[in-house]
Amino acid sequence: MEAEAINLALDSLWVMVAAILVIGMQAGFALLEAGSTRMKNSGHVAGKQIVSFAIATLAFWAAGFAITFGEGNSIIGTSGFLLHESSSSTFSSLDWANVPLSLKFLFQLGFVGVSLAIAWGGFAERAKLSVYIIFGTLFTVAIYPVIGHWVWGGGWLGTMGMQDFAGSTVVHLQGAVAALVATMLLGPRIGKFNKDRTPNLIPGHNQVYTVLGGILLWVGWFGFNAGSTMAVGDGFFGYVALTTNLAAAAGALAAIAAAKVLTGKADIPAMVNGVLAALVAITAACAFVEPWAAVVIGAFAGAFTFWTSLYFERKGIDDPIFAFSVHGIAGIAGTISTGLFASPRLVEITGIGKAGLLYGGGFDQLITQTVGVLGAAVYVGAVSFLILYALKRTIGLRVSAEQELSGLDISEHGSYGYPEQLDPSLLKEAK
Amino acid sequence: MEAEAINLALDSLWVMVAAILVIGMQAGFALLEAGSTRMKNSGHVAGKQIVSFAIATLAFWAAGFAITFGEGNSIIGTSGFLLHESSSSTFSSLDWANVPLSLKFLFQLGFVGVSLAIAWGGFAERAKLSVYIIFGTLFTVAIYPVIGHWVWGGGWLGTMGMQDFAGSTVVHLQGAVAALVATMLLGPRIGKFNKDRTPNLIPGHNQVYTVLGGILLWVGWFGFNAGSTMAVGDGFFGYVALTTNLAAAAGALAAIAAAKVLTGKADIPAMVNGVLAALVAITAACAFVEPWAAVVIGAFAGAFTFWTSLYFERKGIDDPIFAFSVHGIAGIAGTISTGLFASPRLVEITGIGKAGLLYGGGFDQLITQTVGVLGAAVYVGAVSFLILYALKRTIGLRVSAEQELSGLDISEHGSYGYPEQLDPSLLKEAK
Amino acid sequence: MEAEAINLALDSLWVMVAAILVIGMQAGFALLEAGSTRMKNSGHVAGKQIVSFAIATLAFWAAGFAITFGEGNSIIGTSGFLLHESSSSTFSSLDWANVPLSLKFLFQLGFVGVSLAIAWGGFAERAKLSVYIIFGTLFTVAIYPVIGHWVWGGGWLGTMGMQDFAGSTVVHLQGAVAALVATMLLGPRIGKFNKDRTPNLIPGHNQVYTVLGGILLWVGWFGFNAGSTMAVGDGFFGYVALTTNLAAAAGALAAIAAAKVLTGKADIPAMVNGVLAALVAITAACAFVEPWAAVVIGAFAGAFTFWTSLYFERKGIDDPIFAFSVHGIAGIAGTISTGLFASPRLVEITGIGKAGLLYGGGFDQLITQTVGVLGAAVYVGAVSFLILYALKRTIGLRVSAEQELSGLDISEHGSYGYPEQLDPSLLKEAK
Repeated sequence: MEAEAINLALDSLWVMVAAILVIGMQAGFALLEAGSTRMKNSGHVAGKQIVSFAIATLAFWAAGFAITFGEGNSIIGTSGFLLHESSSSTFSSLDWANVPLSLKFLFQLGFVGVSLAIAWGGFAERAKLSVYIIFGTLFTVAIYPVIGHWVWGGGWLGTMGMQDFAGSTVVHLQGAVAALVATMLLGPRIGKFNKDRTPNLIPGHNQVYTVLGGILLWVGWFGFNAGSTMAVGDGFFGYVALTTNLAAAAGALAAIAAAKVLTGKADIPAMVNGVLAALVAITAACAFVEPWAAVVIGAFAGAFTFWTSLYFERKGIDDPIFAFSVHGIAGIAGTISTGLFASPRLVEITGIGKAGLLYGGGFDQLITQTVGVLGAAVYVGAVSFLILYALKRTIGLRVSAEQELSGLDISEHGSYGYPEQLDPSLLKEAK
Repeated sequence: MEAEAINLALDSLWVMVAAILVIGMQAGFALLEAGSTRMKNSGHVAGKQIVSFAIATLAFWAAGFAITFGEGNSIIGTSGFLLHESSSSTFSSLDWANVPLSLKFLFQLGFVGVSLAIAWGGFAERAKLSVYIIFGTLFTVAIYPVIGHWVWGGGWLGTMGMQDFAGSTVVHLQGAVAALVATMLLGPRIGKFNKDRTPNLIPGHNQVYTVLGGILLWVGWFGFNAGSTMAVGDGFFGYVALTTNLAAAAGALAAIAAAKVLTGKADIPAMVNGVLAALVAITAACAFVEPWAAVVIGAFAGAFTFWTSLYFERKGIDDPIFAFSVHGIAGIAGTISTGLFASPRLVEITGIGKAGLLYGGGFDQLITQTVGVLGAAVYVGAVSFLILYALKRTIGLRVSAEQELSGLDISEHGSYGYPEQLDPSLLKEAK
Repeated sequence: MEAEAINLALDSLWVMVAAILVIGMQAGFALLEAGSTRMKNSGHVAGKQIVSFAIATLAFWAAGFAITFGEGNSIIGTSGFLLHESSSSTFSSLDWANVPLSLKFLFQLGFVGVSLAIAWGGFAERAKLSVYIIFGTLFTVAIYPVIGHWVWGGGWLGTMGMQDFAGSTVVHLQGAVAALVATMLLGPRIGKFNKDRTPNLIPGHNQVYTVLGGILLWVGWFGFNAGSTMAVGDGFFGYVALTTNLAAAAGALAAIAAAKVLTGKADIPAMVNGVLAALVAITAACAFVEPWAAVVIGAFAGAFTFWTSLYFERKGIDDPIFAFSVHGIAGIAGTISTGLFASPRLVEITGIGKAGLLYGGGFDQLITQTVGVLGAAVYVGAVSFLILYALKRTIGLRVSAEQELSGLDISEHGSYGYPEQLDPSLLKEAK
């Protein structure tokens, strides 16, 4: 057997496993978001995860993948719609990575699915289902692929040497900026703020779901980050998994400590968000930094985003599952972090960009990373605003106040997610 | 290293991963079925999933695997009981696929486990636990293996060139026909139908479980379908995963649209069933059809089985989790679909059967597929009826009306699945 | 490509998959333990799983791994702190197994995480969070690694030829002994025992979680046991997965039968514990015994530990999730079992120890196994006692009676895990 064929088989197997892990993160988001919202919206919040991934699948297949990874110019890809027009080429290979096109698509689809899951967090508990569907489609074909192309598909940020190994910016910051725009245009949930603008706690209804969702995401992240090597080779993917895991652990402990110190409560959902923030931050950096730096990055992200989640709330922004802090602030922190911590030996292994400031690499990489973050945030923010503002002026973004109070399970889907618990007549009959 | 040894290792690794994914689908079924039934039966419904898989493991090890895959005649296999009598041959290979016997067994056991999980859906909320145990054992040794042998084990349907790549008929239709027989012999749940025969909605108690179960099954299906290649080779398994995913996405959107159009409700459990119906349908076809056809097949299955689930209910059949529509109707649709859509290039790759009607292959494959569906349905229906009718006449199939009203958690297992919620005295104490 | 490089890649891929599966078992424990305890403690019980694994990650990285696997003497390893001081050696290989150090670490970290999850079961529903954190850290650096070194890291038990393939003793018995010490020093939960010392049932609040947790652990165990081959080779890992699965199935059926016979109830949580006890027992034996023996070992563990769980309860020990029976008694039974059942051909394949008594191997292996069990139990018991007794005398182990009655979600974390269900004012507002 030729070495090339062996590597193709090994890498295909790994990318298949990684794709399955990343697609499986949809289960984690369904639980995390359902657990973090109220019983009356639980079926809706969980169910939209399937709507979201279904839309992402069809729209990314039809157009998004081509715009992200197809040949084109430094702004967008312009070839490969429906995975290269003729399905007879479905087994052919792009020159990027050594696996069949079908596997590249599935792995990258997993990423889009995650980005869209984050974006939709900003719509939770008050947006119309139809708005979700329209925005999700447009996000998949006109927002995500553009930044994806800029960084990973041959575009200008990749050419500049931007380091974003598995997508702190491409996947997480994008979803988070869209969520922020959505949550600001939608306005806060009824009852979130008092007349004096002080916020009320609207606790999620099930911390077991939240914790389980967090663990499933942690596990899925091994596919996300280590899978982004898209190769088995000499086992470098193990190193990426190691830094990822160290960061997550540090994020958990830093967040629960921050919660205890700042609010007096060792809050469980805050700890789960700390895990996720740390994972988001290490996503860009996992292949570029040493283990000790992974611990620093994870701890910083876990603690700092707990503080920012309080900060944005005090500023009157009701981001129901803290998408902008957990995925946006941490995405920025993680992307910038390689400008400080990228280690020469790892930069050499990956072959991307330069060493960071702490290793004598100067400010070059720090500037590149900052430009990447700004470019992505501006584009995603502007296009998301245009889409959602147009929808707001036409069909409207938000369900009526009565519908919101009765819950979206009833108003958008016609039945409670927990019928026996929210409609006591059923429970009586049940007994 | 010899090419043969390398392929053995690669294929073994993939089949191991796939077997784990398929066995993991038991978690998906436990959630799907528990979420789709009532609180008072939740422990029972979830717990029987473990009973079911435990029975399948021991019975398939003792006899089922031998009858399915052992050498024999065109009707049944007759060798290899307890995995070839002497355990010293446990590492030996059958000529079918290039992996150790232990892995073939585990992967195929996953399939039996799924088929039995489907069958048991028909028993939900009113059958005796003892009936489950007896029927499950007989299903695993006398029903499933016969059809399995016919199609995959060297039997007459395989010889005819029947295309059932991962078991729309072998796994899903079988389970669904058994479920239909069970549900008809058991009769409807108390309260399901009014005196004028109009049906009442008996909503499942937890849509978050239902959604999570659906996502876990979707993810497990990558092992189910792509694992059925049982080889890594040039990455064809990636193509199979691609068509599988496209179908599932189309099924989700088609089902929620059908629900909205036909009933005015964008029903979440209906969408989950649409995902599953699409996955069931693409299971036969995943390796034979082009991506566009996968979308068509998935969308049709998702929408059509929503309609059939309403239809059977109106006809007085109480199929609590819609097993016959989701796995039976969709299983038939998927099996037949290759007779229309099988593409010449993919038929050549797989080496099974002929191209479909739409590609100028004529009616040959369509006839073969239809014969396969009929053969399986008649055999499974007849044997399931004999077994269950005999049980009905002897020990009885159904718990008493009081037991059914109090719930099977109490009557069959002695404690509520949710003790604090269904026995308020416990909750008071808890606070 | 050289055979060595191919094997490195194959084995790395398998160990990566196995590590992910084992780390994923944290989700199973979170559900199992949350489902087996009360609503008022649910967020705490689930959330501490993340605290636990985060502590394990950082402490095992800093010191535990070095003490377990580093070079040293027959008692402890003394090199490789922070994965070998200089991170530049992170890709280097120990001579044990053919995969990068990062992957060895992650796989073994998964084991520590499981052991700690078991230990913490003994603290459930009444211990202070701070005690958890201190004990967990010390367990990871001063308890687990010592026994790990004795058996797997070049220590005296390994040199004696102790057979503990995947850790019935190293992982499960250790965790269980620590749990027993904790549960005895903490004392029973309020309300567990009446004045006449008869026990009350304190049912877990959600059997669906318990079942789902059990299934997730079952699935994760394929990584645990089959992953312990740490090699793909000729597919021997498939055989290990086969015996593992057979044992689990036998354990489920034996436990539910035992429950029915001994208490008249086909108890669902007892069945789940039977699955786990069987898996714990086969963990030592999976690579040494024939399939029939796996069934015997699993069935014995499932039924016997149901009886011991009743026994310890009658003796006044309140072990909330039966950690000592399920992981301790079954761990002992499994470790000892190879002294009876180890088959000569499998001992030859693994190259560890001798054949068991039933195969004419005499009492040698039985004695070795017994010494191993005793050595581990004494060390873990003594050190756990010292740590916890010191904590009891200083900061105290247990929350106040009011805090315990109000639940640890409120007292330790400031919010209910199920706010809408335990604080009815929220639910009213929600509707």
